[in-house]
Amino acid sequence: MLEAALRSGAAHRRAVFEVFARHLPGGRRYGVVAGTGRVLDELENFRFTDDDITFLRDNHVVDEPTLAFLADYKFSGNIYGYREGDLYFPASPIMIVEGTFAEAVLLETLTLSILNHDCAIASAASRMVNAAGQRPIIEMGSRRTHERAAVAAARAAYIAGFASTSNLMAGRMYGLRTAGTAAHAFTLLHDTERQAFAAQIDALGPGTTLLVDTYDVLEAVRTAVELAGPELGAVRIDSGDLAVAAQEVREQLDALGAFNTRILVTSDLDEYAIAALAAAPVDGYGVGTALVTGSGVPTAALVYKLVARETPIGKLEPVAKRSVGKPSRGGRKRAYRVLDDSGHFQTELVSTSGLTPKGGVPLLHQLVRDGVAVGREPLSEARARHAEAMTHLPKDARHLARGYAAIPTEFA
Amino acid sequence: MLEAALRSGAAHRRAVFEVFARHLPGGRRYGVVAGTGRVLDELENFRFTDDDITFLRDNHVVDEPTLAFLADYKFSGNIYGYREGDLYFPASPIMIVEGTFAEAVLLETLTLSILNHDCAIASAASRMVNAAGQRPIIEMGSRRTHERAAVAAARAAYIAGFASTSNLMAGRMYGLRTAGTAAHAFTLLHDTERQAFAAQIDALGPGTTLLVDTYDVLEAVRTAVELAGPELGAVRIDSGDLAVAAQEVREQLDALGAFNTRILVTSDLDEYAIAALAAAPVDGYGVGTALVTGSGVPTAALVYKLVARETPIGKLEPVAKRSVGKPSRGGRKRAYRVLDDSGHFQTELVSTSGLTPKGGVPLLHQLVRDGVAVGREPLSEARARHAEAMTHLPKDARHLARGYAAIPTEFA
Repeated sequence: MLEAALRSGAAHRRAVFEVFARHLPGGRRYGVVAGTGRVLDELENFRFTDDDITFLRDNHVVDEPTLAFLADYKFSGNIYGYREGDLYFPASPIMIVEGTFAEAVLLETLTLSILNHDCAIASAASRMVNAAGQRPIIEMGSRRTHERAAVAAARAAYIAGFASTSNLMAGRMYGLRTAGTAAHAFTLLHDTERQAFAAQIDALGPGTTLLVDTYDVLEAVRTAVELAGPELGAVRIDSGDLAVAAQEVREQLDALGAFNTRILVTSDLDEYAIAALAAAPVDGYGVGTALVTGSGVPTAALVYKLVARETPIGKLEPVAKRSVGKPSRGGRKRAYRVLDDSGHFQTELVSTSGLTPKGGVPLLHQLVRDGVAVGREPLSEARARHAEAMTHLPKDARHLARGYAAIPTEFA
Repeated sequence: MLEAALRSGAAHRRAVFEVFARHLPGGRRYGVVAGTGRVLDELENFRFTDDDITFLRDNHVVDEPTLAFLADYKFSGNIYGYREGDLYFPASPIMIVEGTFAEAVLLETLTLSILNHDCAIASAASRMVNAAGQRPIIEMGSRRTHERAAVAAARAAYIAGFASTSNLMAGRMYGLRTAGTAAHAFTLLHDTERQAFAAQIDALGPGTTLLVDTYDVLEAVRTAVELAGPELGAVRIDSGDLAVAAQEVREQLDALGAFNTRILVTSDLDEYAIAALAAAPVDGYGVGTALVTGSGVPTAALVYKLVARETPIGKLEPVAKRSVGKPSRGGRKRAYRVLDDSGHFQTELVSTSGLTPKGGVPLLHQLVRDGVAVGREPLSEARARHAEAMTHLPKDARHLARGYAAIPTEFA
């Protein structure tokens, strides 16, 4: 595609690409923007090395003029986008890439792979955080997804409000709070559960979290409090009917005087299971598989579409394909969120005119100027933005059931 | 966990961990082993650098003796496993890790993240290849998953029988055949579809694949053959009712004398959509989203469990947790596949005794000896092994409907 466009000369036309979702898969009510910061990080390193060029040449992937273009490639255009942590809805232009066709088309896979993954994870994570209310969630999904995706998933979960992650690489790369628990293997390794608990308390103090379902839960809890005393930090239950088990364990802990010992539950939790435990005496959740797989929606259905291109006389002209069942709107977009009198989001306004709607909050911010990232921010700001945005959602949009987008997208 | 086990001394006990799936999620009839080669690649680099140690120290993740252990860490044990491309069933011990507890427990996240991802993708890919029959499938999912997961997905798809990938990094890393097609953006960039097609044919010759659904399919096909002649390589249809469109386009191509021009279809295809197109005049498929997300099963539900550990008197003893609803069997396993008289797979035999069953094909092979990878093989062998294994499946196991495992797992 690039080779043909370079040869026809059209590759050098100015072009505008837009990242958006035609719909929110899985009947989700809102999407969460995540990955923008990672796009900026990757963009700076997105060059073609000598080895890359050699591979492309040796395998006859593209011709020599294209190889010469790639050898010199560095994106020099502008990128605008929604901020990380913000919400999005169908047709929200969450990222807009402006440059020549040649330089902008090369960013399709990079931007989409990052945004499709990270937005999917953050969108699922947000529902879990909402279902958990004030109770913290530990991200524990690294073993259930690709080893590098795991690190990005921990980052996306943090944006959406997860309290910590068991992924140490994510802790190191992004400064996230890390947390871990002992596995059944630790108990099984020792000759008795009592010896395992004693070893853990000896090393980590009574404030540690003991895993109590390797053999018999009630016996394990008794042993745990006997060894750690009422200062025992927490117990983790990883199997069975968690609501029933948590109730039994809470009563037992209280009877043993361990009133402040917390109960952490894990075991294939998703937002529905978390919501079902709202009335149970649970103090925190650990979520793995459902988080890293987007809880049924592992990819965000975001696409990267050419919406405008330069004509032979130098004018930027809207373009859109007419493929059946794949609605696309041409033209470089502006986007605003309109709030109602009570401060709740009312409409996602997507406009191809330059006019600013009265009272609309602009959603697009410059992220890259002339090839240089200018939109970096601490990840904590994305997290705070998401928490803030959630308070403006119409109240029924937090409902977990499948439905339509929480607010309509209007085109002006 | 590691810190406490080092402190109690139990960390140095010999231990056996096993990777297996309690069930095949999504009602799948068989799983496909993939990722083993990636585990071997990563294992050799799995060390803790000075920077890693500094991070762990500065963040008080573990104590000094544990840091000292990690600084010197290099896996020195043995690993056995099913070969890549082979099939697996519930409880199949697809990887067995033997070492001290300390060195083996550190491999849990590494092995599981790779195997859970790659097996999920390969298992979905195998169903697609089966549904496609002799027609080739191009892997086109890079934009729908994490940027690094995309590379591993292309590799897994190759093992399962995909013909090529659009991921150039996967082509380079694993020597896979690469293929690409033009996007709608290429057509939209040019002033007319005719100019776009002419540019593409000029650059790539008449054997190229033209995308014909940007505006009007029949008009596009007419233009395509007009410009390229009957030597036009292929047309791609990416929207609408593909069976109907393919039929119309085939008739049109034939009427124009382009009898050898192939029809490639794409547009959110999965194994069911591919099967539904079996009778349509389609020559090849491009699959993206469904492949990289495991077609409804994005992770393989593989776990890494301690099945044996050294007792204080130096004997290796089976261990298993008794958690509700999570069946585990202690003991170091051996695994064999028993075939019936017609050469079809009959039973997956998982044994904790040392006896070899009569006529059973051993499934476990040594992959790592004393920390050194000895089980490497060309990826083409894994692909050939998978194709061969599929011929031995009971015939009804290729049916796409949800069901039980194709053969029972028996324990001896």
